[in-house]
Amino acid sequence: MHLKHPALDPQAVSPRTDSGYPEPFRSRVLPREKRLLGAALGLAKFGVNLTTLPPGKESSMRHWHTHEEEFVFVLEGEVVLCTDAGEQTLVAGTCAGFKAGTKDGHQLVNRSSRPAVYLEVGTRDDADAVEYPDVDLMWNPAVHPDRFTHRDGTPY
Amino acid sequence: MHLKHPALDPQAVSPRTDSGYPEPFRSRVLPREKRLLGAALGLAKFGVNLTTLPPGKESSMRHWHTHEEEFVFVLEGEVVLCTDAGEQTLVAGTCAGFKAGTKDGHQLVNRSSRPAVYLEVGTRDDADAVEYPDVDLMWNPAVHPDRFTHRDGTPY
Repeated sequence: MHLKHPALDPQAVSPRTDSGYPEPFRSRVLPREKRLLGAALGLAKFGVNLTTLPPGKESSMRHWHTHEEEFVFVLEGEVVLCTDAGEQTLVAGTCAGFKAGTKDGHQLVNRSSRPAVYLEVGTRDDADAVEYPDVDLMWNPAVHPDRFTHRDGTPY
Repeated sequence: MHLKHPALDPQAVSPRTDSGYPEPFRSRVLPREKRLLGAALGLAKFGVNLTTLPPGKESSMRHWHTHEEEFVFVLEGEVVLCTDAGEQTLVAGTCAGFKAGTKDGHQLVNRSSRPAVYLEVGTRDDADAVEYPDVDLMWNPAVHPDRFTHRDGTPY
């Protein structure tokens, strides 16, 4: 199928397979694939990724954002959503949302035997920082530009 | 399935079946159904609707936003995307995005014989106004709060 702007066939977008995480976190999420649909469409105010998460992998470390709001919608397969409310299985057609500043970390884990595919939407905000309640990791660009650090600010 | 916050089963959300449009535009979109997932999840920075568009109906009049950015992802069935680039059929799994301020009106039309279901995401911005290139309709809350008007500002 050939679609032209402002339409887009996600399969025409090359997936990103990298992660900015240092080890040992990087291996817990890769080889996750993200197709950056929002960027491909020229959107500036929010990002939209079409993400494929292999069995056994995690979407991210459990985290919450100070300023950026997030939404996920499962398209294929199933993932387990882990938050302070406990674990819940999200099957295709279900969703979750994470208001900025709510101090409840979230992550998706694929505990099934097949790939899970979901859309993730997140606003962009230069003031954003990310906290990780379960691991010694921090993302705070205002203090440490462009890199993850330990919670005490020392580099990886 | 029972999911609790921050997860959500969209089928647990009652659909909105109204429209703020005056006639003759209202009848062109209804009985469209919108489940307001973002609002149900407490999101503040963008809205997410799960929308079902019956055969023969239009998502909206063709329009563009001055400040709000939009994204749509087709989940079931197919719709025709109408923009200045012409008409393109979006099947399940394809998407489109509309950067704020791009003066190219867009709408989705269901020309198929079965309902189409899609996700629509849009940022919220109090400064937003909406222009409709094909019909005598305007939405400019800064000048005419809470109502659609003719292009010359007179009320419907």
